[in-house]
Amino acid sequence: MLNVILLGTGNLARHLFEAFSQSEEVKIVQVVGRNLNDLAWFSHHTAVSNDFSEIFDADVYLIAVKDDAIGEVSNHLSDKNGVVAHTSGAMEMDVIQSERKGVFYPLQTFSKGKKVDFNSIPICIEASDGEVLLLLKKLAVCISENLHVIDSDQRKKLHLAAVFVNNFTNYLYGIGEEICLEEGLSFDLLKPLILETAEKIQGISPKEAQTGPARRNDEKSMQNHLKLLTNEDNIALYTLLSEAIKNVYEKEL
Amino acid sequence: MLNVILLGTGNLARHLFEAFSQSEEVKIVQVVGRNLNDLAWFSHHTAVSNDFSEIFDADVYLIAVKDDAIGEVSNHLSDKNGVVAHTSGAMEMDVIQSERKGVFYPLQTFSKGKKVDFNSIPICIEASDGEVLLLLKKLAVCISENLHVIDSDQRKKLHLAAVFVNNFTNYLYGIGEEICLEEGLSFDLLKPLILETAEKIQGISPKEAQTGPARRNDEKSMQNHLKLLTNEDNIALYTLLSEAIKNVYEKEL
Repeated sequence: MLNVILLGTGNLARHLFEAFSQSEEVKIVQVVGRNLNDLAWFSHHTAVSNDFSEIFDADVYLIAVKDDAIGEVSNHLSDKNGVVAHTSGAMEMDVIQSERKGVFYPLQTFSKGKKVDFNSIPICIEASDGEVLLLLKKLAVCISENLHVIDSDQRKKLHLAAVFVNNFTNYLYGIGEEICLEEGLSFDLLKPLILETAEKIQGISPKEAQTGPARRNDEKSMQNHLKLLTNEDNIALYTLLSEAIKNVYEKEL
Repeated sequence: MLNVILLGTGNLARHLFEAFSQSEEVKIVQVVGRNLNDLAWFSHHTAVSNDFSEIFDADVYLIAVKDDAIGEVSNHLSDKNGVVAHTSGAMEMDVIQSERKGVFYPLQTFSKGKKVDFNSIPICIEASDGEVLLLLKKLAVCISENLHVIDSDQRKKLHLAAVFVNNFTNYLYGIGEEICLEEGLSFDLLKPLILETAEKIQGISPKEAQTGPARRNDEKSMQNHLKLLTNEDNIALYTLLSEAIKNVYEKEL
């Protein structure tokens, strides 16, 4: 049995708490955070504290707070014997002060109230030494079968890639919604297409899956589309994305 | 029973053929196209011809060819009594010469070899008159429960929106793959995130679902990301998408 303490009370902390609660190999012995309202949710299931000088002892301390606060939270753990790991995609492992440290980064987007199946979520692990690595692996397999050992440089790139496929993609969905609503059309019309686009690349590379006017250098269609756009940002995005796609595929035409 | 003739032999024609084949209300009496190799696939199931002067009589002629060829194909049908409809998102209904005409646009991305469930695909219909509209509706409900009457202007906007959420989104997936491969990481790492991003907006608006450094105007993270990018197109895209997101959300911060 691994005793774990969660530092942080946000979306990720909640999802981790729920995932670990389903494992018989892990016990969350305490949740520590500043926000009393958020702590209340956890207090029905485990010990909670908003005092960072009253942290229990545990095998692993998982820091699930905003990137900027990780260093400060880790300072409160510098005299602990357990492993201290943060859960951020963008921060280096060395932002943690402790000697026995690591990273435990679940590569997924977490929303309030929407359950995710941890089992297929990639858990990206980094560790200060072999013993810590074994411990974090043992922890990861309790909630996911999708385990990866990844160093800080790789993880930063992965986090950057995630911004493109998640944050930026979601923004494009928003443009789609905006165009629909302007025409009095329901955004529901685009939802099956959005799902299929995401499902398609589960099996084939996006490079192969690429279609559309820019892919086939269909200038007429692109000009017609540009005439329909009124928002300056959307015009600039349409132009830049089309140019980028043309640059990749022009050799094939 | 509706007798239908398919003009065209590409991906969409194949998917339509397969979908209609499952309905007892529709019979594809002929498939007409130029490419003999592609016609061979259909020839096991129905009559085929590569001679546009030998088109049978039918209730509906569905043109599923490239946008540029729709007008020319419709010329071969000008003396027919049946309804002539094209299947394009981007072309006006009036590109068809016949009097009894319409549009039958399934809003989805179709790939070779990947089955799609037509039942949830929005079929966008336009018609020259009420009688034609009824006929096309009758045809649409044979393969989908998701039926929408949409005029040419609306459909063009919808097609533009589809370029953002499908073609451009897929290109962002490709950038994600590229960044992974450069670091020796598997693109598989991003696949659960890609699916979850698409699934999330089935229930909530993309405007609400937006997260990431640009959303919270986290200049430090954005600068760090830009330092990691080497491809000029990707740098320009990161900058433009982040600026656009900031423009939308800055009032909320």
